[in-house]
Amino acid sequence: MTADLARFSINQMTVKQLSLPELVTACTDLGVPGVGLWREPVQQYGVAAAAGLVRDAGLTVTTLCRGGFLTAIDPAERAAALADNRAAVDEAVTLGTDTLVLVSGGLPAGSKDLQGARERIADALAELAPYAGERGVRLAIEPLHPMFAADRCVVSTLTQALDLAERFPAEQVGVAVDTYHIWWDDQAPAQVARAGAGGRIHTFQLADWTTPLPAGVLNGRGQIGDGSVDMREWRERVDAVGYAGRPIEVEIFNEELWARDGVEVLRETAERFVRYAV
Amino acid sequence: MTADLARFSINQMTVKQLSLPELVTACTDLGVPGVGLWREPVQQYGVAAAAGLVRDAGLTVTTLCRGGFLTAIDPAERAAALADNRAAVDEAVTLGTDTLVLVSGGLPAGSKDLQGARERIADALAELAPYAGERGVRLAIEPLHPMFAADRCVVSTLTQALDLAERFPAEQVGVAVDTYHIWWDDQAPAQVARAGAGGRIHTFQLADWTTPLPAGVLNGRGQIGDGSVDMREWRERVDAVGYAGRPIEVEIFNEELWARDGVEVLRETAERFVRYAV
Repeated sequence: MTADLARFSINQMTVKQLSLPELVTACTDLGVPGVGLWREPVQQYGVAAAAGLVRDAGLTVTTLCRGGFLTAIDPAERAAALADNRAAVDEAVTLGTDTLVLVSGGLPAGSKDLQGARERIADALAELAPYAGERGVRLAIEPLHPMFAADRCVVSTLTQALDLAERFPAEQVGVAVDTYHIWWDDQAPAQVARAGAGGRIHTFQLADWTTPLPAGVLNGRGQIGDGSVDMREWRERVDAVGYAGRPIEVEIFNEELWARDGVEVLRETAERFVRYAV
Repeated sequence: MTADLARFSINQMTVKQLSLPELVTACTDLGVPGVGLWREPVQQYGVAAAAGLVRDAGLTVTTLCRGGFLTAIDPAERAAALADNRAAVDEAVTLGTDTLVLVSGGLPAGSKDLQGARERIADALAELAPYAGERGVRLAIEPLHPMFAADRCVVSTLTQALDLAERFPAEQVGVAVDTYHIWWDDQAPAQVARAGAGGRIHTFQLADWTTPLPAGVLNGRGQIGDGSVDMREWRERVDAVGYAGRPIEVEIFNEELWARDGVEVLRETAERFVRYAV
């Protein structure tokens, strides 16, 4: 591993064309020290087996993605979501990561009540946060770009994420700072400082903003350096408020990257990380 | 005209399949009292001729769309943009409207400096605002949804738009409040109040938020009532801070609406306006 990659973590979704063993081998070969894992491929491989594979390779699991989807009004749906999130916490424990990323959920069908949905997230966190904290897992509320507010995540800004997180102890609930979602927001730098001061930056993730966006907009994130985000400026910003030395995940959803050789994409991503963020 | 339509204005882009004479006839037939016009089709028809057509039909031109694109770094590009905006002010005067909507512009090619772009907008407004004010035209800075920050408008929130507008007298510069762009923002209600208190709500526009977004995202606005936005709540919000009785434009960019009969779409839009917003 080169010193420049010391903080680099590849989020599994960036190279989802790689199986978990392929990903682990590629990380070892390329000197990548960290991985962010996703529940679905990990469950498919077997959570305990995945944990062993990653541990034996000496990789750090920087986060598990993702819990959340906590906006349901229907009591049965809400109970199912809470149970699923407790399972996600347990999986995080098995995988040896201290951070579970939460995508909070969008508006229930037919609802136009953003504020009500945000309050239901707070209610759900009141049940989940102690459960996570007792197991040494921190929940990281990820504000998603406002274009996802209706259908994916009613928490759209770092301000809102912190307003939720600060109702709970920092060792239970913090935030995910992802450049893709917050780069446009002139209030985000001050909120990064607020998060850092409170010890609530539980993960820092990079993706670039490129246009035009594809249909559905979910898989339009750009490779580091291809877009409008000044990665180094954001890295320096989180480092200045207490994040220095901690892992930085690159998490990109992009059909073009997925269509290429996964090892080649991982190598390119590591190079871009060094060139634009270190 | 029914009383329910007294404040209704159809933005020309919503039914762009209609020629200007067709639009004017349809408005007369359906009892629609106001239109928001766009420069390109008006120029194509002839500005003076368009002004006469609309005036003879007794229609109010609620806004002209659009000026702006003020973020250029290159001096020649900047000068061209300023000249074009002065021409837009002149066209607004000819058309008899008091409001020119501004879409401020995105990042210049290769730039990642959002704050610099926002400052260049302020510099350009310092030249344009007096020119407009002397001619009885108010500039309305429209915050566009953050998903347009890179390529269309670096002014993403009502807060930012007001921060720019308040550098100038309210009779020169205010804001456009468009539900499509700000519905997700929990700070927007307070900013609507700020805008109203300062006499800076220069236009109020409606479009609904529907998903999934189409490729390029520009033409994915929803018909009133089809999406996640509580139109009546927003209408009551602007009315409560001084906008009561003033025109409300419906401005929708939507390929499916454009593929239909324009008069039918106008009728539907008027009905939706009454059902969801009045």
